[in-house]
Amino acid sequence: MQNKIRSFGILGGDKRQLFLADSLIKDGYRVMLGGFDNLRSIGDITIADVRTALGYSDAVLLPLPSVRADGSLNAPFAVSTLYFDEEEQELLKQKPVFASMKDRLIRAYPALKSARIYDYAARDDFSVLNAVPTAEGAVECAMSAYEGTIAGARCLVVGFGRIGKILARMLKALGAEVTVSARSSTDRAYISALGYDFVNTEKLTEIRGYNIVFNTVPKLIFDRELLENTDCDTLLIDLASLPGGVDFDAASALRIDAQRALSLPGKCAPKTAGEIIKTTVFRMIEEVNR
Amino acid sequence: MQNKIRSFGILGGDKRQLFLADSLIKDGYRVMLGGFDNLRSIGDITIADVRTALGYSDAVLLPLPSVRADGSLNAPFAVSTLYFDEEEQELLKQKPVFASMKDRLIRAYPALKSARIYDYAARDDFSVLNAVPTAEGAVECAMSAYEGTIAGARCLVVGFGRIGKILARMLKALGAEVTVSARSSTDRAYISALGYDFVNTEKLTEIRGYNIVFNTVPKLIFDRELLENTDCDTLLIDLASLPGGVDFDAASALRIDAQRALSLPGKCAPKTAGEIIKTTVFRMIEEVNR
Amino acid sequence: MQNKIRSFGILGGDKRQLFLADSLIKDGYRVMLGGFDNLRSIGDITIADVRTALGYSDAVLLPLPSVRADGSLNAPFAVSTLYFDEEEQELLKQKPVFASMKDRLIRAYPALKSARIYDYAARDDFSVLNAVPTAEGAVECAMSAYEGTIAGARCLVVGFGRIGKILARMLKALGAEVTVSARSSTDRAYISALGYDFVNTEKLTEIRGYNIVFNTVPKLIFDRELLENTDCDTLLIDLASLPGGVDFDAASALRIDAQRALSLPGKCAPKTAGEIIKTTVFRMIEEVNR
Amino acid sequence: MQNKIRSFGILGGDKRQLFLADSLIKDGYRVMLGGFDNLRSIGDITIADVRTALGYSDAVLLPLPSVRADGSLNAPFAVSTLYFDEEEQELLKQKPVFASMKDRLIRAYPALKSARIYDYAARDDFSVLNAVPTAEGAVECAMSAYEGTIAGARCLVVGFGRIGKILARMLKALGAEVTVSARSSTDRAYISALGYDFVNTEKLTEIRGYNIVFNTVPKLIFDRELLENTDCDTLLIDLASLPGGVDFDAASALRIDAQRALSLPGKCAPKTAGEIIKTTVFRMIEEVNR
Repeated sequence: MQNKIRSFGILGGDKRQLFLADSLIKDGYRVMLGGFDNLRSIGDITIADVRTALGYSDAVLLPLPSVRADGSLNAPFAVSTLYFDEEEQELLKQKPVFASMKDRLIRAYPALKSARIYDYAARDDFSVLNAVPTAEGAVECAMSAYEGTIAGARCLVVGFGRIGKILARMLKALGAEVTVSARSSTDRAYISALGYDFVNTEKLTEIRGYNIVFNTVPKLIFDRELLENTDCDTLLIDLASLPGGVDFDAASALRIDAQRALSLPGKCAPKTAGEIIKTTVFRMIEEVNR
Repeated sequence: MQNKIRSFGILGGDKRQLFLADSLIKDGYRVMLGGFDNLRSIGDITIADVRTALGYSDAVLLPLPSVRADGSLNAPFAVSTLYFDEEEQELLKQKPVFASMKDRLIRAYPALKSARIYDYAARDDFSVLNAVPTAEGAVECAMSAYEGTIAGARCLVVGFGRIGKILARMLKALGAEVTVSARSSTDRAYISALGYDFVNTEKLTEIRGYNIVFNTVPKLIFDRELLENTDCDTLLIDLASLPGGVDFDAASALRIDAQRALSLPGKCAPKTAGEIIKTTVFRMIEEVNR
Repeated sequence: MQNKIRSFGILGGDKRQLFLADSLIKDGYRVMLGGFDNLRSIGDITIADVRTALGYSDAVLLPLPSVRADGSLNAPFAVSTLYFDEEEQELLKQKPVFASMKDRLIRAYPALKSARIYDYAARDDFSVLNAVPTAEGAVECAMSAYEGTIAGARCLVVGFGRIGKILARMLKALGAEVTVSARSSTDRAYISALGYDFVNTEKLTEIRGYNIVFNTVPKLIFDRELLENTDCDTLLIDLASLPGGVDFDAASALRIDAQRALSLPGKCAPKTAGEIIKTTVFRMIEEVNR
Repeated sequence: MQNKIRSFGILGGDKRQLFLADSLIKDGYRVMLGGFDNLRSIGDITIADVRTALGYSDAVLLPLPSVRADGSLNAPFAVSTLYFDEEEQELLKQKPVFASMKDRLIRAYPALKSARIYDYAARDDFSVLNAVPTAEGAVECAMSAYEGTIAGARCLVVGFGRIGKILARMLKALGAEVTVSARSSTDRAYISALGYDFVNTEKLTEIRGYNIVFNTVPKLIFDRELLENTDCDTLLIDLASLPGGVDFDAASALRIDAQRALSLPGKCAPKTAGEIIKTTVFRMIEEVNR
């Protein structure tokens, strides 16, 4: 498939897609943008309308998420709300479409059921690669909100999934004292083998002596009861996707500084986030061609 | 269960069990050794015969492996070959027995089928914890056999399981340029997120430009054909359990320095290996009591 | 001397002095603040006026800088401008005074020539300890301004003094590709031994291929000529004390994103900066008592 | 000078000089060895006698040390003892000579006083670069002699000079708990800024709780008195040049495992040690030509 792809139509998206476009161009691909009419020009990249970008490209790249809840293209740089009309849907069916949240896309445009839609965001490697900008974004939040240095700070990372693994490593590399909370005995062994202290997430009944706590678990871990047993000068950064892992009302009432940190790759490192989309799409092409 | 255990009978084993005994004593347990008659005394540890050690303890610790292929106790420090007689088997059935290779043990002593045998070596966390002394042993081998420093050496780690993960990290921490070979796209993403170079194990058709290669995959990766396409000044260290991952005859014929490095925790770091047995046994006790 | 000191009068200063006060109180000292009238209360710390704080303490702590160019106490939290009157100067002469910029202080109050003034900020160890919050502040700036992640970014650190050493280490720990520029052959050897790439500061005639450049050298390195030979998408962070090492007008004309980052410990990590003052003062007391 | 040098005569030395020769050849230089008659052939390197190697080269490389106490060439691979005769001394005066221990060389051959002798081993950068193989050699010794892993071991590094700096970093990277002993307040600040614990070398009156102690200070720190206050299961590795920093008789009497580890670069990493000679010589040529 890759051999044939020489041009990409990038429809909608934010800064990440612009960096993605830039990176593709540097790799020698032709790129046409659609749904960015608010921007006059961006270096050498051609800005067109959605239909042109769709028509003149070998493959289509949709953003993250691809469409909004109402089915419109997720195109914050577009002047107006954009929907794929029938002709555009027909074009989408003729070429490989790299998208995210495929289910929602097909729900909005049932005609695309027969399209070759490749969901890059559903892949595990995509999530792993994004753990780096996410963890760095979390460190940036902590550096900005915490009045001491990360070096020497006592940090607790709740959860040892993709983000917890990368974040714990980054904090330790910066000189923090890192405790990781997890549940399984295997995780516990890794945590100890990698030089972190361990606490059992199930036994988290109080948070004492930590300067910064990062939650990565998408469950209400920091409920009112736990927060009542948390030092009030602890900084709490919640990385878990909505609804998140912290009772923010309780935190606020208890005067604990709790912050939600969501969508960090796109916010803190759109360049890297765009390159990760490219990397993932290229791997999908590679795998299909194998 | 733990509340009740105040004394351990350690039957058979090598230096690891001596360090295990020492560590238990420091934790306040009583320890009696059986099957170590070749040793006069070891600090404060009481050396007895197997039956006494069995009789006077709340729990029994068997070594790794627990029994040899012929059913005899794995007791390199014993004067004679030791088998459990009926009375001893009866004693074994009365208390918790922490052992390894449970199947072989029961095959040798079918009466133990009803005993409470806990196989510590079959646990995943035990293997993860042992990846540290294994990786360090591999580094020690490499330092000893390679004529340059690890710092600045180009290293390839084949496989990204428990040992590959810890070893790659250690090598990079020492300043090596580290490439990791794996197969899945998730591993590939982790390898890249952790800052290593990646090669696809399935596409390893030649080994060029590496100073040291560590194999951790228990499959014949380094067959004659691959070795013929390997720089002959590459040092090759095979960590994979027998039959291993290297055709040593071919390596020798091609004058490639290939070394088998097996059972590293017991050989290179018996103190740590003994402590890992203790840690794992304590976790099992904890879990049973939960 | 330390035996006798049981209370500190902290006169003037910003958040750093508040964290310093807090840390001293946790160590069991009595602390009285003067020159903070804008604050109602801060936890358990007593806020008094300058004279009271001076009178009721065994030793005096002045901020960084201690006095402004016009001789007034550097007290941003005070309601009015404060000068030491004769009586206060007399009190200052009776007890150890830990201050910064001693020369300026004595120039403003010649009567203090005979006082026991200990300049903590003039010490080398104070500067070394402050290199950590400075480097972290620089990393925070970079994370905030750069659109990619530090992980994977190509970074150049100009200068290998206290800040350069700590900053290079931090960047590498975060996964950046780090080049350090220095001049001496000894620095060059250390740079290489620590795993960074080296460029000779004297041969910096162009800046190509770097994502982020940190200048730590207080000399006009980045003059118009060098900036004209700098990639315009390079982020340039100048840590050098005024007048700094960058021609900001030229940078602006060339559309290079250049940022001044000064006084980072106080801005980014006042808690750590306050603790560093305490640590340094304690060492001075230790040395005097030896 | 460099432009003119196209060939090197390498006279005497051990494995380091062979790797040096190999590395020079890979860089495109012609190399002739003298004083290696015990070796038949080494790859592509020409083995000649001293006079031929001297005569046919643009520059001469002498080993480390260059001559023995009796004035003979330090040539362990030579069949007989070699002295430079008058004709050879004349040849040495005609070309740049890169040597070590220049004073001893001139004392043995006063005629060389007027020769262009460049002492590479006297340079600070040479020592700094060699700190890496020295520290790695020390780690290898420790791994081999200590029965636990470095990961998790409590290590004390006495001295924070070139070797102490690199060694402390390596140990911490491997997961050890590292304490560094030094004397100056600046070193103390660096030690703390780099995340190590500090002890004052002058206050070392007992060594308790360390698994491994590395001495780098060339003074009798570990005298009988200190050893009497050292845990007897502490492993003590002395890296200080002779006479060293440990009373080995006392250690032996007290059953403390104390080991001398000298000349580590040549023993543990001759390849790297040879490359460091090359690097240093090239820098000297560069500097002369500047």
